[in-house]
Amino acid sequence: MKKSRIGVIGYGNVGREAVAAIERAPDMELAGVIRRSRGGPADLPVATGAEELGQLDAVLLTIPSPLIPETAPLYLQKGINTVDGYDIHGAAMLRLRETLGAHARECGQVAITGAGWDPGTDSIFRILFAAIAPVGITYTDFGPGMSMGHSAAAGAIPGVRRALSLTLPLGYGEHRRHVYVELEKGIGFAAIAERIREDPYFKNDPTMVIEVEDLAQLKVTSHGVRISRTGSSGTAQNQLLELKMKLTNPAATAQIMVAAARASLRLKPGCYVLSEVPPIDLLPSSREAVIKEMI
Amino acid sequence: MKKSRIGVIGYGNVGREAVAAIERAPDMELAGVIRRSRGGPADLPVATGAEELGQLDAVLLTIPSPLIPETAPLYLQKGINTVDGYDIHGAAMLRLRETLGAHARECGQVAITGAGWDPGTDSIFRILFAAIAPVGITYTDFGPGMSMGHSAAAGAIPGVRRALSLTLPLGYGEHRRHVYVELEKGIGFAAIAERIREDPYFKNDPTMVIEVEDLAQLKVTSHGVRISRTGSSGTAQNQLLELKMKLTNPAATAQIMVAAARASLRLKPGCYVLSEVPPIDLLPSSREAVIKEMI
Repeated sequence: MKKSRIGVIGYGNVGREAVAAIERAPDMELAGVIRRSRGGPADLPVATGAEELGQLDAVLLTIPSPLIPETAPLYLQKGINTVDGYDIHGAAMLRLRETLGAHARECGQVAITGAGWDPGTDSIFRILFAAIAPVGITYTDFGPGMSMGHSAAAGAIPGVRRALSLTLPLGYGEHRRHVYVELEKGIGFAAIAERIREDPYFKNDPTMVIEVEDLAQLKVTSHGVRISRTGSSGTAQNQLLELKMKLTNPAATAQIMVAAARASLRLKPGCYVLSEVPPIDLLPSSREAVIKEMI
Repeated sequence: MKKSRIGVIGYGNVGREAVAAIERAPDMELAGVIRRSRGGPADLPVATGAEELGQLDAVLLTIPSPLIPETAPLYLQKGINTVDGYDIHGAAMLRLRETLGAHARECGQVAITGAGWDPGTDSIFRILFAAIAPVGITYTDFGPGMSMGHSAAAGAIPGVRRALSLTLPLGYGEHRRHVYVELEKGIGFAAIAERIREDPYFKNDPTMVIEVEDLAQLKVTSHGVRISRTGSSGTAQNQLLELKMKLTNPAATAQIMVAAARASLRLKPGCYVLSEVPPIDLLPSSREAVIKEMI
């Protein structure tokens, strides 16, 4: 079997784990890592552009989410599939799918967007729960775990040196937040705490702000989710469905992006969310082998 | 939106629930029920052949599993998609998919096979768990719940009037069984119990046989499953994934078959297992509406 050649764009938490996941995939080889500046891991091919890495079948965009809409088309135009883990939902996700879809179809390539665990595999779990019990309510409860977006929002407030925001589940889709902050010298805590609680990222959830000396001691990359649904199938009430995961967050995200890159090579040109991909194509074996072993 | 017209073949536990599920589906209308002999529910169109029900987009084969391989082609030849919940796995499932696939492609139709909860949605959960954490072990623990196959096997033993076999989870993929039997008059219990425990259906699992006066008091249609995986994503160990469901069994099976019938209308001719179907197509809304509401 010819291995597909995969590139990793960016080398942060998710990029590092993407490299590890590709190196462990039986059907892939790592073409290299693409960064803005040279340098980085000595034992890996590192480049500043795709041209330096030879033929590429797909790239994983492990870059800050806001850069994805402008970056994905650059690779699609070079005849390379793209996968991202953009953490947007609903109408915003639909718009990105349309924009990237137009590029992808024009270039005859495939883009898969929102290929993380939420959106991503969680979305598939929610869809399957609704297919099994169409009338009912689904709750998604996140955490405990660090929210990248909320940590960045708190960290951007003047006077805050570093911040870490934990998402804590209250159950039934509600959450509260614990925000740990390291402050610049001479900054008063009370005003910062108030400012964080009033920030749009936090004002709708119960938020506790805690001052610490050294944030590094608290940094966790574990996260969790519980998706639960009580619903009915036909006339049968009380169908109970529950999914729980405890995950190292960047590793799970990277691994799902790797699976999506694999599936992208079997799809027609266009942009897809993960729920539009046949699940069987996420695994390295042929469909026939998966049916024999896992169905 | 034009509603698709769906027929139900058979009117047992699953067939009755299939009727209920179709009647509640916003995108479908029940064309009718097809049975070997006329008669049955007075408030539903009942026929002995597809011709009597007008145009049909898909039929659900809620008939005994062994009849599926010979029955599905009869409908495919009439230009009707078929969905079944055949409870076979592995190589046997692969063979059925190949046989039905040849018929389906020849007729330009779609057959979806094994569209229940196991095989079916459980298979998708197992695949997603393996995509998220590719190195690891998945356990599927069934029950407590009635096994149709085991109940029939015990019930077929001479001297047994009726039998009900409960599957009880021992955890980590192992199961034990409680077999309740109503015996014919004058039949000795000890010999029957021994015969059941030695039957190929039972001999590999710890099996307790219990004699009862009236089996009807014990008949349950609830079932359950727990799928758990501990694995690694890239370098991250200790990824914990767990799926639990408590379901009214025939209703869940019927509901999943209904979802598969819907998806079958969006697939190219051929035979598919449920894991080959884009999950998003299992729901009645358009892909765009699902992305807006659930992703």
